[in-house]
Amino acid sequence: MQNITEIDDLVKLISKLPGLGPKSAKRIVLKLMNNRDEIIKPLANTLAQVYKNVTRCNLCGSLKSNIEGCTNCENVKERFNKICVVEDIADQWSIENSKIFRGYFHILGGTIASAGHKKEDLLINSLVDRVIRDNIEEVILATSATVEGQTTAYYIQNSLKKTKVKITKLAQGLPVGGEIESLDDGTLFSAFKNRSDLNSSS
Amino acid sequence: MQNITEIDDLVKLISKLPGLGPKSAKRIVLKLMNNRDEIIKPLANTLAQVYKNVTRCNLCGSLKSNIEGCTNCENVKERFNKICVVEDIADQWSIENSKIFRGYFHILGGTIASAGHKKEDLLINSLVDRVIRDNIEEVILATSATVEGQTTAYYIQNSLKKTKVKITKLAQGLPVGGEIESLDDGTLFSAFKNRSDLNSSS
Repeated sequence: MQNITEIDDLVKLISKLPGLGPKSAKRIVLKLMNNRDEIIKPLANTLAQVYKNVTRCNLCGSLKSNIEGCTNCENVKERFNKICVVEDIADQWSIENSKIFRGYFHILGGTIASAGHKKEDLLINSLVDRVIRDNIEEVILATSATVEGQTTAYYIQNSLKKTKVKITKLAQGLPVGGEIESLDDGTLFSAFKNRSDLNSSS
Repeated sequence: MQNITEIDDLVKLISKLPGLGPKSAKRIVLKLMNNRDEIIKPLANTLAQVYKNVTRCNLCGSLKSNIEGCTNCENVKERFNKICVVEDIADQWSIENSKIFRGYFHILGGTIASAGHKKEDLLINSLVDRVIRDNIEEVILATSATVEGQTTAYYIQNSLKKTKVKITKLAQGLPVGGEIESLDDGTLFSAFKNRSDLNSSS
C-alpha cells in the first residue's frame, strides 16, 4: 500500500468495524476512491450529521434524533400500553422488523452480568418510571435466553413489583425448524417443561 | 428499525460498500452508535480529509495526496528504471505487499475491453510519456491473465514500440500449490507452453 496518511487512517478505522478486517477494509477504501462524489462525500456528511444529531435517549435507551426528539418514548405518534424490554438496540430492530409487536421499547443497554455493566448502568430505574408515568399494563421481558439475560429479567421483575404491572417473558422451547436431534439439552429441557396441552387448546 | 433520517441514510450508504448488505450495514451502524467518539467522529473527519486531499494522479493513475504530491510518479524518494503496469490500484497494493517488485507503478484504470472503458480512458499515452521522460529501461506488463487483460497488454506493447523500451509480461503457468487435476485447460496450456528446461537451468 502507498503511504498516504489519510488512506492509512481510513483503512485502520474501517478495519475496526464488525465483520471487517484489513483486507476487506482496503477493498472498501478502493471502492470509496472510485466513488468520491457518490459515496465518500455523502458518507462523510451523514456521519457528521449522525454524530451531531443522533444520541441514545437517556430515558428509554433507544436512538434519538436531537431534532425530532425520541420517537420511541417522547414524541410518539401513537399511545401504547405495552413495553418490550430488550438488551440492545439490535434486539429492538429485530423485533420491529418482525412486526410481531406493537408498543414501546425499552433498551437496557446490556445485561447485569455482562462484562463492564453494573446494575446502575442499565436503564432499570427509568423503566419503572415509564411504567408508572405512561400507565403501562404489560411489560414483556425479551432479554436473551442466557444466564445473564435471565438474571437481568429476574432483577427487573423484582424492581417492577411495586408497580403491580403485568410482567411476561418470552416463551422458551423449540425454535421453528429445529430438529430434535440437533438441539442442546437446555432447549430440550425448556421445551419439555413448557409443553402445551393439546386437548385444552383445541 | 426506527425512523431516524440520518440513521436510514447511513445504513443505505454503508450497504453500498463491497461485501456488505443491509444486515451487516445495520450491525456496523449499531457499532458506530456505541462508539460515537472513538469511531464516528474520526471516521467522518478522515473521510472528509480523504475527499479533500486524496485524488487519482492524472499521470500515473495511482492515489495522490494533494498536499505531498504523487509519491508514485512525482515526488518519489528513489529513482527507478522499471515501471510495472497494472489495471487497478488494488493490483498495485497487492504487488507492493508482496515486496517482489521495486520500481514505479502505472495504473491503467481498467482494461480496453472491460465495460465502459475506452482506450482513451486508460492512461496509456501518459505511460509512453513517462517511459521517455524517466529513461525507463523495462516496462513489466502485469495485467490480468484474462482476454481483456491480455488484449490490453498487447495494445500497450504496440503503443510502446517507438520508445524501444524493453517490454516484459508476467509468466503464466501453475499457481503455487496448484494441483494438476484441478487446473483449467487454459492454465495447463500455458504451463506446457512455457515449460522450462531443467538441464539448462541447473
